[in-house]
Amino acid sequence: MQLDNIYKPTLLVDEAKCKSNISRMASKAASANAKLRPHFKTHHSAAIAEWYREYGVDTCTVSSVEMAFYFAKNGWNDLTIAFPFNPRESKKINEIASSNTLNVLIESVESLSFAIERLNHPINFFIKIDLGTHRTGIDPTNSYLISSIIEKSKNAQLNFKGFLGHAGHSYTNDHGKTRDIFNTSKGTLKELNAQFGGIISYGDTPSCSLMDDFTGFDEIRAGNFIFYDVMQKHFGSCAIEDIGVCLASPIVAKHAERNEVVVYGGGVHLSKDFIVEDGKKSFGKVVMLSGEGWEHEVIGNVVRLSQEHGIIEPAEGQFDRIKIGGLVGILPIHSCLAADLQGHYLSTKGNRIEKIQKD
Amino acid sequence: MQLDNIYKPTLLVDEAKCKSNISRMASKAASANAKLRPHFKTHHSAAIAEWYREYGVDTCTVSSVEMAFYFAKNGWNDLTIAFPFNPRESKKINEIASSNTLNVLIESVESLSFAIERLNHPINFFIKIDLGTHRTGIDPTNSYLISSIIEKSKNAQLNFKGFLGHAGHSYTNDHGKTRDIFNTSKGTLKELNAQFGGIISYGDTPSCSLMDDFTGFDEIRAGNFIFYDVMQKHFGSCAIEDIGVCLASPIVAKHAERNEVVVYGGGVHLSKDFIVEDGKKSFGKVVMLSGEGWEHEVIGNVVRLSQEHGIIEPAEGQFDRIKIGGLVGILPIHSCLAADLQGHYLSTKGNRIEKIQKD
Repeated sequence: MQLDNIYKPTLLVDEAKCKSNISRMASKAASANAKLRPHFKTHHSAAIAEWYREYGVDTCTVSSVEMAFYFAKNGWNDLTIAFPFNPRESKKINEIASSNTLNVLIESVESLSFAIERLNHPINFFIKIDLGTHRTGIDPTNSYLISSIIEKSKNAQLNFKGFLGHAGHSYTNDHGKTRDIFNTSKGTLKELNAQFGGIISYGDTPSCSLMDDFTGFDEIRAGNFIFYDVMQKHFGSCAIEDIGVCLASPIVAKHAERNEVVVYGGGVHLSKDFIVEDGKKSFGKVVMLSGEGWEHEVIGNVVRLSQEHGIIEPAEGQFDRIKIGGLVGILPIHSCLAADLQGHYLSTKGNRIEKIQKD
Repeated sequence: MQLDNIYKPTLLVDEAKCKSNISRMASKAASANAKLRPHFKTHHSAAIAEWYREYGVDTCTVSSVEMAFYFAKNGWNDLTIAFPFNPRESKKINEIASSNTLNVLIESVESLSFAIERLNHPINFFIKIDLGTHRTGIDPTNSYLISSIIEKSKNAQLNFKGFLGHAGHSYTNDHGKTRDIFNTSKGTLKELNAQFGGIISYGDTPSCSLMDDFTGFDEIRAGNFIFYDVMQKHFGSCAIEDIGVCLASPIVAKHAERNEVVVYGGGVHLSKDFIVEDGKKSFGKVVMLSGEGWEHEVIGNVVRLSQEHGIIEPAEGQFDRIKIGGLVGILPIHSCLAADLQGHYLSTKGNRIEKIQKD
C-alpha cells in the first residue's frame, strides 16, 4: 500500500485479519453443525462478501431491502432481511423473492396481514423474538400471539421458517452476563422450537465471539466480527490485533499548548458513536500507519469530533511523532457505521474495494 | 407530495421554509453591507444551492476539497474551503484554483510551507483564528505567528485575504453568552484587521440567528440555518416551524406494553447526534406527515437508535395514531449530518433533489 496516494480520510481494510476473523467464527459454527449466515450490514460490500465463500458460507443476513437487492444481484441467493417486515417495500421484496430464497421477519398480526396481502412470491418468515434487548420482537412467553401468527400464515404464500433473536443486551464487558445471555437465549429459542417447530437463528458479535460452543443453534448471524472495532475490543470480544479496519486520516493542524492534533476525519467518516473510558469519551483510537497497514500500539484518542474535524489527544511522548502533512490511523468505535459512511474502501494491499452506493 | 410513494427513510425538504430562512439571513447581511457566503456543508446539493441565488448570493463556503470541486463544477466560482489546508490534497486544490477563485485556511508555518511548495495557481488564504472554541486556529494574541505567516506568504502565489473565525462555543442556550461571544469575536477580528489588514469572516448559526446587526463583519459564513434542526431549536436559534427538513420514516412495529414504536430510520439515516432534555436523550422529534409536508406538533421522541432501527416513545395519547405500514416524520437533531447520510432528498412538492455522491 502506497501511503502517498492517500489524500483524504480512507477506510483501510486488512483482508488477512478479516479472513482470520471469518475463519474463527466459521470453525465454531461448523463444529456445532450450525449454519453461519453472517450479517453483511457491517461491510456493505459484494467484494468483501466473497471472502466468506472460502469458508463455506453461502447465505447471508442483511438489514435492509436495498442491501438484500444489492447482494442478490451479486450472487447471494439465500438472504434474511433481519429487520421487521416493512409493508411499504413489498414491491421490491417481491422482486427479490421472484428469483431468490428470501426470509423476512414478522412480529405482529398487523405486519403479517400486510405480508399476506402484498407478498405474491413464496417467502419464508421468521418470528422475531425479544430475547431481552427490548428493541423489538415478541415476548417469548406470548404463545397466543406466536400461534396466531403461525396459524394465520398458513393461508398465504408464507412459509414459517422458525424463530430469530438478537441479544443486543450482550454488549457489555461483564462476561458472566454475556454467557448468561447466550445460554438463556438458547434455552428460550429451543423451548419455542420444541413447542412450535422451525429452526432457531441467533447472533450478536459479543456473545458469539466469547462463546466457543454453538451447539443447539441452527444458525448464527453475527456480523461485526469480520471487522470488529474499538467497542468490541472494549467489551472484550476481540483483541486490538483483530480489528480489520482503520481510517487513514490526514493530519492538518497541531496545538502543542493543549496537546491536541487536528485530523481530516470527522463525524461524516467515523460516525458519532463513542465509548467512555475512565470518564472520558473516545471517538476512536489512534495508531501509526505503515506500508503493510497499521501498528497495534495505541498512541492517542479521538476526544472530539465535528463534521469533518477529528481532535486527537496524543498519549505522552507521541505529539512529536505526528506531523502536519502526514497520516495517522483511527480504529473506529463502531465499524458498521464507519463503513456505511464511506464511498469505497482501500485494501492494505492498495486495491480499491467497491461497496453499495446510497440511492 | 404523494406519501404513498415513500417506502424507505427519506429526507423531505421544504423549499418554502428553506427560502424563508435564507431570506432572513440574507436581509440581515445586506443591511450590514456584509457578504453572505453561506456554508454548503449543510445541504450538500447543487440544486439547493441555486435557491440562494434569488437572494443575491454568489459565493459559498464548503468544508472539504471534494465539496469545493462539486460546487465549482456546478457554477460556484468563488469558494472558501473552511477547513485547515490539507497538503495531501494540493493537486485537486490546484485543479479547482486553475479556473475559480479559491480561498483556503492557513494556521501554521508548517502548512504555509506546504502551500508555498505545492500550490501553483493564485490562491487566497485566510488566517484561521481561534475565537475560543479551541477546535483549531491561531490564538488571536499570537501576533508573532500571524505576522510571520503574512510575511512568508509574500514570496508565493498566495494572497493574504484576511481573518476567519468560527465561534463553535456559541452552541449554547444561554443567549447572554451567545451575544457576548458574537461581540467579543467581532472585537477580536476587528483588532486583527486594524493591525494586519485583510477582511474579516465570521459565522455560526446560533449567533448569526440570534443577532440582528452584522455591522463590522465583511463576511458571514453560517450554513445550518437553511435547514435548522432540533439542536438549533434547543439553543433557541429557530422555532420548530423554521426547520426545513424531516425524515419520513416507515413504521414497522409497535410495543404497547412499553409505549414504544419502531421505525425504519436509524443511525445510518439520522446520525448518532442527540440532545439531552430533562436528563433524557433525544435522537429526533417525531411529527405527523401530511400531503404538504409535516405538522409542527411534536408527538414523540426518538429515544434510542441502532443502525437501521429508530425507537420512538410517543407522547401521551399519541400511540394509537401511529400505525404499522404508515409513516411518521422525524425532525433531525443535526441536519448537516442527517443530510450527509442520504443518497438524495425529496422536496415536499414531490421532486427528487440530487446531492453530492460519496466517492
